[in-house]
Amino acid sequence: MSHIFSVGDYLVERLSELGIDELFGVPGDYNLQFLDSVIAHPRLKWVGCSNELNAAYGADGYGRSKPAAALLTTFGVGELSALNGIAGSYAEYVPVIHIVGAPALNAQKRHELLHHSLGDGDFSHFPRMSAQITVAQALLTPENATREIDRVLGEALYARRPVYIQLPTDVASHQVSAPTRPLESRLPAVDKNSVEAFTRAATALLRSADSVSLLADFLADRFEVRDAVQQWVDDVPLPHATLLLGKGLLNERRATFCGTYAGKASGEPLRSVIEDADAVITLGVCFSDTVTSGFTQNIAQHKRIDLQPFSAQVGEQVFSHVPLSVSVDILHRLTAELAGFWKPAAIPDKTLPAPTETGLCQQAFWQEIQTFLQPGDILVVEQGTACFGAAQLNLPEGCDFIAQPLWGSIGFTLPAALGAQIANPDRRVVLIIGDGSAQLTVQALGAAIRYRLNSVIFIINNDGYTVERAIHGAEQRYNDIAQWQWTLLPQAFGATEPTLVERVTDVSELRQVMAKIDARPQLCWVEVVLPKMDVPPLLSAVTRALEAHNSSRE
Amino acid sequence: MSHIFSVGDYLVERLSELGIDELFGVPGDYNLQFLDSVIAHPRLKWVGCSNELNAAYGADGYGRSKPAAALLTTFGVGELSALNGIAGSYAEYVPVIHIVGAPALNAQKRHELLHHSLGDGDFSHFPRMSAQITVAQALLTPENATREIDRVLGEALYARRPVYIQLPTDVASHQVSAPTRPLESRLPAVDKNSVEAFTRAATALLRSADSVSLLADFLADRFEVRDAVQQWVDDVPLPHATLLLGKGLLNERRATFCGTYAGKASGEPLRSVIEDADAVITLGVCFSDTVTSGFTQNIAQHKRIDLQPFSAQVGEQVFSHVPLSVSVDILHRLTAELAGFWKPAAIPDKTLPAPTETGLCQQAFWQEIQTFLQPGDILVVEQGTACFGAAQLNLPEGCDFIAQPLWGSIGFTLPAALGAQIANPDRRVVLIIGDGSAQLTVQALGAAIRYRLNSVIFIINNDGYTVERAIHGAEQRYNDIAQWQWTLLPQAFGATEPTLVERVTDVSELRQVMAKIDARPQLCWVEVVLPKMDVPPLLSAVTRALEAHNSSRE
Repeated sequence: MSHIFSVGDYLVERLSELGIDELFGVPGDYNLQFLDSVIAHPRLKWVGCSNELNAAYGADGYGRSKPAAALLTTFGVGELSALNGIAGSYAEYVPVIHIVGAPALNAQKRHELLHHSLGDGDFSHFPRMSAQITVAQALLTPENATREIDRVLGEALYARRPVYIQLPTDVASHQVSAPTRPLESRLPAVDKNSVEAFTRAATALLRSADSVSLLADFLADRFEVRDAVQQWVDDVPLPHATLLLGKGLLNERRATFCGTYAGKASGEPLRSVIEDADAVITLGVCFSDTVTSGFTQNIAQHKRIDLQPFSAQVGEQVFSHVPLSVSVDILHRLTAELAGFWKPAAIPDKTLPAPTETGLCQQAFWQEIQTFLQPGDILVVEQGTACFGAAQLNLPEGCDFIAQPLWGSIGFTLPAALGAQIANPDRRVVLIIGDGSAQLTVQALGAAIRYRLNSVIFIINNDGYTVERAIHGAEQRYNDIAQWQWTLLPQAFGATEPTLVERVTDVSELRQVMAKIDARPQLCWVEVVLPKMDVPPLLSAVTRALEAHNSSRE
Repeated sequence: MSHIFSVGDYLVERLSELGIDELFGVPGDYNLQFLDSVIAHPRLKWVGCSNELNAAYGADGYGRSKPAAALLTTFGVGELSALNGIAGSYAEYVPVIHIVGAPALNAQKRHELLHHSLGDGDFSHFPRMSAQITVAQALLTPENATREIDRVLGEALYARRPVYIQLPTDVASHQVSAPTRPLESRLPAVDKNSVEAFTRAATALLRSADSVSLLADFLADRFEVRDAVQQWVDDVPLPHATLLLGKGLLNERRATFCGTYAGKASGEPLRSVIEDADAVITLGVCFSDTVTSGFTQNIAQHKRIDLQPFSAQVGEQVFSHVPLSVSVDILHRLTAELAGFWKPAAIPDKTLPAPTETGLCQQAFWQEIQTFLQPGDILVVEQGTACFGAAQLNLPEGCDFIAQPLWGSIGFTLPAALGAQIANPDRRVVLIIGDGSAQLTVQALGAAIRYRLNSVIFIINNDGYTVERAIHGAEQRYNDIAQWQWTLLPQAFGATEPTLVERVTDVSELRQVMAKIDARPQLCWVEVVLPKMDVPPLLSAVTRALEAHNSSRE
């Protein structure tokens, strides 16, 4: 059977060109035509997921270490199930291409009462919903398809955020020409005068300072200046820290790395190094409530140089069209010239505090994780005790960190870890997630088994929503969850390959299991029983701030 | 501690007044204040679910046999996960009250960078998304709370569709007065002249007819004329059928009940009874693609009397402000007067066709289900082989039927069955769902165990998305799913109470298991192994129509 080159083929070809090697999703009768293009493609691989939310989370985890990610759902039912995942990608800047298989154009034009519609003949409700959480939307037709595909893919890469593509069944199989030129990339505008003015202002501030600190966050990773920033702090003895969302951005084993800053909840030497410097460079930061212990960052605006993706600011002065790639270079050069004149900073001790109680408690667990982590690992931590516990770790060199403290959707990390593992088949993904969270998305374990992933998964069984207990209603039954037998799940979800399944209740058991994990790569599913009310110290500080905020009327 | 009467208490009181006894949801830090009101209430019970989509489906299943249902989620992450469920309730007219715990009003006004927001300080994205799939929305403030709560609850009951309530944490605990008057209900407008004109037109058409048939659908149930319609067909010998979405609406054991009409795919006597009558009364129908085998209903407009919730139509003439409660009474009276003059109809044989092959195939399975069903059961069938197979059943008296053929979200029925069981603790819920569908929402089994529900669940294991195979790509790997060991799941999800867990591969095993189920009420989880490519005859007809539609360019 001869095969015509179709819109579906064109889209698949462009995804592949972007460096996307895997497409996450769930089949549905409006996207099967497009799936034929996927199956026919020599490189793009289909990753079928148990449900659309898990697929969206998987794509997000994948997109955090690839240039972009792609997700395929079906009209209405499928796409709406994925929205929470897409919104998280929007909030935390992950370019996920959301492709929605839709009814044929003429059926839409005739306002037919099709399944997966609201039954009102209006097919525009769902694109309107997605427009709130994507930077560009395309409703493909035979006439506009290739142009619109190129436009929205360009927007996703430029803004580092999700886009929405509605692909009707008949458009998917419509014949078009294959791309003849590479996808054009849209570069951020640079204003030469603005850059010069910024340079003068930054120079003046830095010259007047006796001490300078750098606080970097996740946007440095998203807008691809991570290597440039690492080079900078390798080169210039600048005391630096990251926020929690940006943890793992920089090599935490460098002498001048000071830790994970969290406003007032930071340990004292760390807080002082960042806040008390005469000039503070903030780079790609987003001061959201959970990473600042309720907006307790205290950095006077007049001494701040703030670098954002498309603009920069010195004190109160904003300089537009000064993108990160430019501003980082300028600051690197300026600080290199001036660093010799600055007072040396008191670098904090990054050793974890020893547990105050015996037995397997939160602090004992994190001590063991600190020892367990290896260079090159990808550590994925669920928003809850895991993320706030992991904040205090000193990551090995080349260890990446995935968490979602801004969007904070519980259940995110189980499928996201799977996505990260698929994106990085040769690295070890270590996931730490609580029992309450894992219940939301547990079928992702089935996908991990199906795709034979050798990830290491620690399920913290602390008997319910401990993070919510810490905020409000510690003993209320709404913070209880169904009691599962966690160690039976891998077999139920089809594990037949070698799989390490363990349950640990004390430190020596945990150490033995970690030794087994080190001995052989395999899927590892370890239930770690921790006290119900035990929370890492940073989480206590954050939850006190959140509860005060929720009940405040100011 | 003295407790002030709060907005949260007011809302809980109103929900209870509506006949809502259970609130489905997932806790989150923006809804914990409201949950205190729920826990303090003497009647409303909290049903904590594993995730928000399951909670939304559970509320939908609950609302299909209660006056309304309620769902509680948290801002952003929680509410977006529930949208697919809410959209299904909108499409299929189930009044679900979606309550979203939100950040304190002043934090919203200050545009703070809060967790669960997009990080842009704009808190209106999510209400805008929900506005597409709800009939009314309320953003509560201390000033408007009680008035707005009453307004949107009234709208939900009037339109029989979901509404959205955003409840900020500080508003939830704000002091108000308890309701002093019952909630006012808004009644559909009745226009006396329009009613008279409709009556004249209907009389003329019915007088000119030698044969009359009635086709009823789900809106008769949703707009609460079900009992009146049953009375009518008990009283008048009118051959009648339902569409698939409205199956179970009327007593299928009456002599004049003709079956489940599906356009051209209906068995010949059934098609003819409905389509070839001189006058056809259609009552609360929605001719969507899946219930009409791709719009193959063939009922000439000039001989049709169409009764809709708020209007009626005779031939081409529309009569507004003639609600169902009025039009059903009129037609009941008119047909009673005229029925003696009509030709008797040839009532179809409703016996299931015998299986054409030996062994446990689709038809053999449905034969056994036909025998197994008891009066008063609630049969819940997943959109897929289950729903289309069940279409041919002749339900026992008082047996309700829940399916979702318009919205058609796979995975819906597992949590929906749980919701139906919670709404009807004294009835037996029988769920039939395929393996591909059950994977989307499987954690609902954990909730069924947690809440000690004695439902009977048949998992059809046919090795993947058989309904999609029937549409397109029969042997394509995108229609494969992860291979699970279904019988291990109940224990993994915490089953400790007596639970019947079985796997059957032939007819005699199935019969033995059904005998065990009959012997004792308990949670039953039965894996039924059926051939991968075997589909019920109606599904073949429907999928052929859908595939033709998807690839058509007309």
